[in-house]
This record gives sequence, structure tokens and C-alpha cells, in this order.
Amino acid sequence: METEYLGYAAGLLTTFAFVPQAYRMIRTRQVRDISLSWAVAMTTGSLLWLCYGIARESLPMIAANGISLVLLSIILALKIRHS
Amino acid sequence: METEYLGYAAGLLTTFAFVPQAYRMIRTRQVRDISLSWAVAMTTGSLLWLCYGIARESLPMIAANGISLVLLSIILALKIRHS
Repeated sequence: METEYLGYAAGLLTTFAFVPQAYRMIRTRQVRDISLSWAVAMTTGSLLWLCYGIARESLPMIAANGISLVLLSIILALKIRHS
Repeated sequence: METEYLGYAAGLLTTFAFVPQAYRMIRTRQVRDISLSWAVAMTTGSLLWLCYGIARESLPMIAANGISLVLLSIILALKIRHS
């Protein structure tokens, strides 16, 4: 049970880390220093981690990667739109 | 077993995603569009995911977050140095 709290703490950090990044991209419309390869790999990777979380029955992984996937899709769309 | 392959595929993507990002930061020395909050939260979060992976005995999580932690520490150092 304590292990799961650790997972939720990790998930909160790595998920909501994308919020200021997305906000900065929306506010400045500057995306030059963001690597497109990074955005594509992270979005695809999050989807796979989500599937892995479901297979391993890890609620923190499912929650964190589900939300990350949405935020990363926004970041990827902004990168493509403003490049 | 197949589940673990899924984890390794996810880990390869989300870990090596940081390589082009770090490379771009080293090459251009431009870090303005990278959010400091993002870099701090991701580095701390990776450390916690690594601990979670150890607790859940997930080799893909241990490998992916161990390497991510190193790469994110480099990105964080570059952000602080070139800001």
C-alpha cells in the first residue's frame, strides 16, 4: 500500500511537470527549443506505459500515464502548429 | 513475460526521448523555451518512479528510470547553467 503512495507521488511529479511546459508553449508560442523527436517519442512512450500499467494492474501508472498522454498530445500539437 | 517487453518498449521511448532534447540544448546552448519547473519535477519524479520500480520489482521501470534520471540531471544542469 505504501508502495502505491510512492507511485502516486512519482506520477504527480512527472505528469504535472508537463503543465508549465504546455503553458509556456501556449503563452509564448515559441517552440524552437523543444525537440520534435522528444515530443513524438514521449507521446508514444506514454501510451505504451499506460498499457503496461494496465497489464501490471498499477493504478498510479494508469492514472499518471493517462493524464500525461493528454498533456503530451497538446504539447506535440503545439510543436507542430507553431514550428 | 510479454508484458515486460511492453515495458521495455515504453522505457526505450520515454528514456531515449531525452537524448535529442539534451543534444539540442548542448548544441544550441538555448534553453529559454524549456521550463525550469518541468525539469525539476521530471528529475525528482524519475527518482521516485525508480524507487517504485524497485518496490514493484519491475525491471523495465528500474532500467528506464535509472537512465532517465541521468539524462534529466544533465538537462536540468544545462537549463540552470545557460539561463
